[in-house]
Amino acid sequence: MNSRTRFLAACRGEETDRPPAWMMRQAGRYLPEYREVRSGSTFLGMVHDPEKAAEVTMQPIRRYGMDAAVIFCDILVPPGAMGMEVEFVEGRGPLLGPPIRTRDDVERLTDFDATEATGFLGDSIRNVRAELGDERAIIGFCGAPFTVASYMVEGQSSRNFENTKEMMLGDPESFDRLLERVTDNSIGYLKNQVDAGADVLQVFDSWGGTLDAATYRERLLPHVARLVEEAKSNGVPVILYVNGCAHLLEVMADSGAHVLGIDWRVDPKEAIARVGDRVALQGNLDPCTLFGPPDVVRQKARQTLDAFADQKGFIFNLGSGILPKTPLDSVQALWETVLQPSTAPHSA
Amino acid sequence: MNSRTRFLAACRGEETDRPPAWMMRQAGRYLPEYREVRSGSTFLGMVHDPEKAAEVTMQPIRRYGMDAAVIFCDILVPPGAMGMEVEFVEGRGPLLGPPIRTRDDVERLTDFDATEATGFLGDSIRNVRAELGDERAIIGFCGAPFTVASYMVEGQSSRNFENTKEMMLGDPESFDRLLERVTDNSIGYLKNQVDAGADVLQVFDSWGGTLDAATYRERLLPHVARLVEEAKSNGVPVILYVNGCAHLLEVMADSGAHVLGIDWRVDPKEAIARVGDRVALQGNLDPCTLFGPPDVVRQKARQTLDAFADQKGFIFNLGSGILPKTPLDSVQALWETVLQPSTAPHSA
Repeated sequence: MNSRTRFLAACRGEETDRPPAWMMRQAGRYLPEYREVRSGSTFLGMVHDPEKAAEVTMQPIRRYGMDAAVIFCDILVPPGAMGMEVEFVEGRGPLLGPPIRTRDDVERLTDFDATEATGFLGDSIRNVRAELGDERAIIGFCGAPFTVASYMVEGQSSRNFENTKEMMLGDPESFDRLLERVTDNSIGYLKNQVDAGADVLQVFDSWGGTLDAATYRERLLPHVARLVEEAKSNGVPVILYVNGCAHLLEVMADSGAHVLGIDWRVDPKEAIARVGDRVALQGNLDPCTLFGPPDVVRQKARQTLDAFADQKGFIFNLGSGILPKTPLDSVQALWETVLQPSTAPHSA
Repeated sequence: MNSRTRFLAACRGEETDRPPAWMMRQAGRYLPEYREVRSGSTFLGMVHDPEKAAEVTMQPIRRYGMDAAVIFCDILVPPGAMGMEVEFVEGRGPLLGPPIRTRDDVERLTDFDATEATGFLGDSIRNVRAELGDERAIIGFCGAPFTVASYMVEGQSSRNFENTKEMMLGDPESFDRLLERVTDNSIGYLKNQVDAGADVLQVFDSWGGTLDAATYRERLLPHVARLVEEAKSNGVPVILYVNGCAHLLEVMADSGAHVLGIDWRVDPKEAIARVGDRVALQGNLDPCTLFGPPDVVRQKARQTLDAFADQKGFIFNLGSGILPKTPLDSVQALWETVLQPSTAPHSA
């Protein structure tokens, strides 16, 4: 069993020799070699450069040897390809303009052909495959419709999503149409990643957890489920990650995704009891654990592995993306703990 | 049954003619009359001025007639009284310095006598009582130990609480001592509010919901439970509010609080089923609902009231504080809906 077959088996709820493992945002600023490549470029410049994107995608694999590489890209690439201005301002996060607030704004967005408009991403994936070989998995991804739409409506990161919820409540048809258009374009965008070599697709719903379960089910799930179904039709497993999802597990499981990515506030035993018979699970160590000393990191990582030991289909991950200032000795301790071969097969 | 007896009855799980109601941050920037008083002062200047604090505390009561006035103050008053520099910078939120990171930092904090150091708050409460009369309740409050400590450690608002969790994991004894010292000082601070006339006390745990349930139970609950017990010993009901608490309801109920304040992501029926027989409940309309049109606000408010109809002891509130840019016509629609007398008695 190599890393790739291990990863794909876990996604499908099959037995593995040990849980496969990767880390959200593993190609990122906590690595000094990333910061070196990044120093001469803008963030989006790196995303659009298939050589640099492949290079930083490979960096964590070379250093730690996780089971999967996640392609270096950003969930705001599709809004850019749909005609919005998207830039990343140091210290402020993404800025998108002009914000989408009305039906006219929604209709003015353009559909894009992923092979043309985001061909750089296919090139990045092919570059990664050339270096990675066939032994490890490549994860492609996109943002979930609500998460992407919330950036398009707010025009920036938001704490409370006032404008998004104003549009959801005050002009539900236009907001639904926005989700539909984001979904339409995400489908081709994901297909293009699989065509280029992605083995697995993850849908990132960073902000869907700010909605209650009834609202998520009624307003978001139809779009998420359609996106998941279309993604699966490419013949790859699909992971749905929602941050802050303790109240949403059953709704997420109804999306049709093979794997639910869960955050650190979800109790593993409770997740297994609630949805573990329907889906594989991925998670869920608090990324802030890595700010603790290495021996605490080892202990907490083992606790997470133990807590999921009975889950049929489990992928180790953090509960959200690794943070930029994370100390490397803790990251080292994490991977030494998680990637060591286990004597006992995982789950059954 | 007047507003005060209605409020106190609901806190104790008794039947009421309709659910009592108030709104977190109801004395705040969404009100033009608040902005007028605020224009000549700093935020902390207003907190320290018993006339201005009483004036803005009364403003929402005069306009809408909620059942309770919540005293205008801030959860970062105790860190200031413990010797930290605390200021509020427009657009950046609170800044506290120097940050508490080591055992020495923790020990250097000073204990304060609430009647001396925060006597302005007692004066504010007495001023409110003089205008409010005995018909409505006054709510005093403090931050929960973790929430207050996280500001003291980070020195500012934080999204991920890296420094706080680093201290929790790397120097657990010192972090525990910090929680203990915050709790010690909060006890007298709350007592002083009751002595001045507060009828009910709320403990605000704005950030405790960023921890998983096992960690909350092990590391935070002993301090929260001690604070709640001491607060109750003043003879008043105690409300424990935790933002993002869907995974924490049972832990919160074990605090000994009379009432659990819950956020909008918690399904009301689920909260009732999980803890409704042990505690009264308070919540939980999404504050962003108020950015929707007034007819949607009326509908969503009625849905919230209906969802809690079977709960023995229910207080209507938002799921977190009202936001500064909230449109007034929606606030008006909310209070017309929530405060109208019901023909049927609430709960049984």
